[in-house]
Amino acid sequence: MAAEIVNPRSDGTTDQDGGAEPLDSFDPAFALHRGGKMAVQATVPVRDKDDLSLAYTPGVARVCTAIAEAPELVNDYTWKSNVVAVVTDGTAVLGLGDIGPQASLPVMEGKAILFKQFGGVDAVPIALDCTDVDDIVETVVRLAPSFGGVNLEDISAPRCFEIERRLQERLDIPVFHDDQHGTAVVTLAALRNAARLSGREIGQLRAVISGAGAAGVAIAKMLIEAGIGDVAVADRKGVVSAERGDLTPVKREVAGFTNKAGLTGSLEDALAGADVFIGVSGGTVPEEAVASMAEGAFVFAMANPNPEVHPDVAHKYAAVVATGRSDFPNQINNVLAFPGIFAGALQVRATRITEGMKIAAAEALAAVVGDDLAADYVIPSPFDERVAPAVTSAVAAAARAEGVARR
Amino acid sequence: MAAEIVNPRSDGTTDQDGGAEPLDSFDPAFALHRGGKMAVQATVPVRDKDDLSLAYTPGVARVCTAIAEAPELVNDYTWKSNVVAVVTDGTAVLGLGDIGPQASLPVMEGKAILFKQFGGVDAVPIALDCTDVDDIVETVVRLAPSFGGVNLEDISAPRCFEIERRLQERLDIPVFHDDQHGTAVVTLAALRNAARLSGREIGQLRAVISGAGAAGVAIAKMLIEAGIGDVAVADRKGVVSAERGDLTPVKREVAGFTNKAGLTGSLEDALAGADVFIGVSGGTVPEEAVASMAEGAFVFAMANPNPEVHPDVAHKYAAVVATGRSDFPNQINNVLAFPGIFAGALQVRATRITEGMKIAAAEALAAVVGDDLAADYVIPSPFDERVAPAVTSAVAAAARAEGVARR
Repeated sequence: MAAEIVNPRSDGTTDQDGGAEPLDSFDPAFALHRGGKMAVQATVPVRDKDDLSLAYTPGVARVCTAIAEAPELVNDYTWKSNVVAVVTDGTAVLGLGDIGPQASLPVMEGKAILFKQFGGVDAVPIALDCTDVDDIVETVVRLAPSFGGVNLEDISAPRCFEIERRLQERLDIPVFHDDQHGTAVVTLAALRNAARLSGREIGQLRAVISGAGAAGVAIAKMLIEAGIGDVAVADRKGVVSAERGDLTPVKREVAGFTNKAGLTGSLEDALAGADVFIGVSGGTVPEEAVASMAEGAFVFAMANPNPEVHPDVAHKYAAVVATGRSDFPNQINNVLAFPGIFAGALQVRATRITEGMKIAAAEALAAVVGDDLAADYVIPSPFDERVAPAVTSAVAAAARAEGVARR
Repeated sequence: MAAEIVNPRSDGTTDQDGGAEPLDSFDPAFALHRGGKMAVQATVPVRDKDDLSLAYTPGVARVCTAIAEAPELVNDYTWKSNVVAVVTDGTAVLGLGDIGPQASLPVMEGKAILFKQFGGVDAVPIALDCTDVDDIVETVVRLAPSFGGVNLEDISAPRCFEIERRLQERLDIPVFHDDQHGTAVVTLAALRNAARLSGREIGQLRAVISGAGAAGVAIAKMLIEAGIGDVAVADRKGVVSAERGDLTPVKREVAGFTNKAGLTGSLEDALAGADVFIGVSGGTVPEEAVASMAEGAFVFAMANPNPEVHPDVAHKYAAVVATGRSDFPNQINNVLAFPGIFAGALQVRATRITEGMKIAAAEALAAVVGDDLAADYVIPSPFDERVAPAVTSAVAAAARAEGVARR
């Protein structure tokens, strides 16, 4: 890649003077990204001084005064209650790693337009020039008055766990790390449908997760919340178990609530006889290990662009195969979850996004599949227009049921 | 106002259930503000998986990688170079004072839509939950990677001066406190045209500014930059002069570069024989003081909603009268300046907004009036479509001339 990059300005050609745009003609992704992917628009007219006297001074002063006297009115008379900050520090961007805040912006803009397109939620990229946990927490707390929710994105583990926890403690708006919970919600939805297809209960299944980062830990927690029979998490050194002396605090916690079977050893060892493989790690799982799984296994190999198990291999042994890719059936894609989850939470002005709301989102997402359930259709398409409304309604109802809704 | 406020939710009626909206029916400003005044929109299509593969994964990863390797590409391939953070702490909102960040949001949204409407600049309200100078500076520095510029708004003096200075030192994008410089640019434009109308040079004029806050100090600096004969600044205790023992550091600085005549005493004393009155303070100037000004004086009484001198009174003595109000001729309105100033600075990716760029903005703004110059037309209407393009071009050219343009 590096050798192909030509700075459009370094050779004196810019979009201003109509010169060639090397990157844009190399690659349609660059052409599409030119000038960015989003904009702000006014939703009220500003045509003349009468409009201005309502939208700005002097009319606006009356609205400000009303909010100063009854602060909750900010949700009625500003865009706050429909706008989410998409916050990153650029340390774990896609599979690219720590590329910094500015280089992460195309992803954050992409996220923002997906929020709008699929959930009707306004979203603003906030890429932070700091990586210290205290600094990120303080910064987000300070800018929170402007926002109805905070979507944390592409912040590396284990900092992401503490940042999310501390922010949610300090703020009365939802704080949601999508790399954890979005992935977990969609994975659970797919797993529920795979289980239904094979006539089994979640409680009968033993799962193995490859990857103990943000997604792996969150999926493990959610599967346990959903009543999985057993789940083990493996990192590069093998199964996370209490016997290991090299665990980080987060992994020690994982060891405490997973792996009832007390497995030790490698990922491959753990897969022998397992019902479910969930890959959120990259790397490759040997075919023999896939072959050693239980009859009718589910293989969710979600690494992008290269699944841990190629679908062609997985299909030789597994009853249901899912990936993170759009060019195979059963794409586990976060866009199925986060727009509706935030839309539902914002609709009822929830103070947080609870486990119950996430479970409700997964159930609503799974239910969209309905009677069309099949091995190559355990999860809807991101472009299925039923998805976001179903998730939104379910999340709003769950927020009310759980007592975190403010209306 | 307080007695009239009815929380739409306190009586069980909300927009969800179609109930009455007391505030909205009392006052069209509330009806207009319901749900806020702005939204985010995607500028690229997200219709199908092919679109998604360019705007989001996997295509977006190539754009991120390119920016990581050539950081200046962030300006070509994200919205950064066209988006301004409208940052406040809610401490000096309009004439309302310290109403806090959330209550300031309607003003910040208004500012944002004016940026878009008049300058084509995207802008995002960032109302901060902190008022300490260090905290504000650190917070804005941390979120700066996402933005092409920072418009500081409604931050009380004297903190606003230090915040702006320190931010501009730390950041390589324009930082501009509109309450200071926007007001100063439009005031200078009106003054230039008033001088031209009366056949005088700026250098022949002696001005008195009522108000030593953000606007007053900035206007004083700009008038001196523009070559005013003399200018004195008065606060509530009278003319700011080196003899006073009660001056803040900022006012000591003001005393150092203003008031060549060595005036002391009251505002009224200073007005005797003065050519120009500039009011940015509120309060009322007695008619006798206006009457004591020089023949053919200019009275710019810009306090809102109540000018320091009512235009009917001012016209008895002054050759040119301007106010901050839209219902009198010659409205000194910041919207004449800030959209074009930022649009010009962003167009050339300026690293800062220099004095020269501000002077250029004022000259371009004054020039729009052209041959139509008259006592009731020394400044264009905010809705004059020639204004923003003229200011934009002049500011961009000045940035290049001053060596702060990056393209």
